[in-house]
Amino acid sequence: MTKDAATPDLLMPRFVIQPEEAESMGEDLGVADLRDLLPMLLPAARKLARPPISGFHVGAAALGVSGRIYLGANVEFPGVPLHHSIHAEQFLITNAALHAEQGIRFIAVSEFPCGHCRQFLQEIRSASKIQILITGGAGGTSGDFRPLSFFLPNPFGPADLLPEHVPLILERRFNDLSEVEENREICNNGLGLVDERLREAAFRAARASHAPYSGSPSGFSLADSGGRVYAGSYTESAAYNPSLGPVQAAIVAYLVAGGGDDGGGVGEGIVAAALAEMEGAPVSQEETARVFLSAVAPKARFSAYRLRPSAGVASMRRKN
Amino acid sequence: MTKDAATPDLLMPRFVIQPEEAESMGEDLGVADLRDLLPMLLPAARKLARPPISGFHVGAAALGVSGRIYLGANVEFPGVPLHHSIHAEQFLITNAALHAEQGIRFIAVSEFPCGHCRQFLQEIRSASKIQILITGGAGGTSGDFRPLSFFLPNPFGPADLLPEHVPLILERRFNDLSEVEENREICNNGLGLVDERLREAAFRAARASHAPYSGSPSGFSLADSGGRVYAGSYTESAAYNPSLGPVQAAIVAYLVAGGGDDGGGVGEGIVAAALAEMEGAPVSQEETARVFLSAVAPKARFSAYRLRPSAGVASMRRKN
Ligand SMILES: [Zn+2]
Ligand SMILES: [Zn+2]
Repeated sequence: MTKDAATPDLLMPRFVIQPEEAESMGEDLGVADLRDLLPMLLPAARKLARPPISGFHVGAAALGVSGRIYLGANVEFPGVPLHHSIHAEQFLITNAALHAEQGIRFIAVSEFPCGHCRQFLQEIRSASKIQILITGGAGGTSGDFRPLSFFLPNPFGPADLLPEHVPLILERRFNDLSEVEENREICNNGLGLVDERLREAAFRAARASHAPYSGSPSGFSLADSGGRVYAGSYTESAAYNPSLGPVQAAIVAYLVAGGGDDGGGVGEGIVAAALAEMEGAPVSQEETARVFLSAVAPKARFSAYRLRPSAGVASMRRKN
Repeated sequence: MTKDAATPDLLMPRFVIQPEEAESMGEDLGVADLRDLLPMLLPAARKLARPPISGFHVGAAALGVSGRIYLGANVEFPGVPLHHSIHAEQFLITNAALHAEQGIRFIAVSEFPCGHCRQFLQEIRSASKIQILITGGAGGTSGDFRPLSFFLPNPFGPADLLPEHVPLILERRFNDLSEVEENREICNNGLGLVDERLREAAFRAARASHAPYSGSPSGFSLADSGGRVYAGSYTESAAYNPSLGPVQAAIVAYLVAGGGDDGGGVGEGIVAAALAEMEGAPVSQEETARVFLSAVAPKARFSAYRLRPSAGVASMRRKN
């Protein structure tokens, strides 16, 4: 296959490229090192952006240690404050985490990353060594990769607040939270199959949540009209504000799976959603999730479930 | 006065130091250049922090071109998502803006600033030249000031999105928004004096709001039991997420004036609040302000007012 013949394939936007596809793309394009594919994928990544407020399309691509390539793009939500926005780099890392990627060494972005994203990236183990190439913004990095430590020297990060052994983003974790049998039965009585799957998905996402700073893990799930369920885990940043909410993480899962493409807004096709979070935790996402849904996915019915540490008295109750 | 005698004064936490006070402090401490006072003020600044979630106190101090010195400290709010947190550097800049400071050239911070704050600082004209000294975090900057361009090289910022003439943070602006006479009368009929002052303060704050990216200026005001009114303007960042909400800006005004010191949480003493924002704008703060108030200031009654551009049909209506 010639370079020209491969180009249309590269331009077809999709969020994950499997290792064998990436290898064959590399061969087709005469790229010896797969990291050099990343900047070539940015035009396709930019097409995946959903920025109805700014109209400013940002694309990002990363090569995982698995050999998979992930794409990310920015997503904005009219009607709610700007801190609900998902940047391309946050989308990228959340996409990789969804696919249980173990590590990322190379990233390309179509614009110089903002400070918020440089900080979010800091949440990855050995973040300072991640190599970043930028194509836009006054020549970008002139075709070179530079380490995150160049873009965010003297960082504030996980090492300032956490012991070494605490898992970071892209590392396996298990928050030992529980549901109680009788409550599960109560839920089963009143709920349909989709709601039951939403509840379970939100619960699993809460157990995988990265929330070591506030101790407030949470997970969010949403369903489309076809009964498909998508879930995401709340992901904290050592710097607090750049944390990615559970709703945003679930939206990433939804878009990666091809959802949100009904022609209208991102949330147009969402019919139901569920949140699972710890009772009495310092951070609660419930009311903020309601605000988001009423602006972005007004047709979605919403359930919030409470969790407790397994060590304590486990309980889970449903609120409408 | 000897150096020792001056120390207790330095330790007395307060958020603004007038030029003549700063000069006399400098003389007392044998400091030839007032910029060298800034690191000495950080222990006092750290005492002003309100971090009930992290317990992590951060202090910041800045020298304005007016000769005034401003202090900032981090503030956290249990019960709501972490993006509601105010970092010391954001507090600092908001404090300076409240006092109509025209420019800031020197900042000292007790920890390495996070990426979110480096990005927020980028919103000041000629931000790259702001000189920053850090005292904590593995030796900080070893007693030296370094430019923001060192901490955030190749920034994404206002220049990427705005024409040169658009005012930035610390520059005068006037959003030409209007109230309508008949609506003002309606408001007067049903409202007490404090509510009337809250409405006016929120309106004025909305006119001073820095929201060039979304075109959604807003202002927030709050009142304590003594009938004192405090207001703050929504302040956007080119990178969206690091924007400071109008509620947070008003909380800064409240704390700078000595409020929030009733022994309980920051919002304990707030009895009423008002938001003014543009009807139909891409970003709405109203529901998020409700979520914040119900967690942080549950005793506060809340009114939301809508504004329109003066050029169009101006209107303002009250919602409970
Ligand atoms: Zn960003
Ligand atoms: Zn910060």
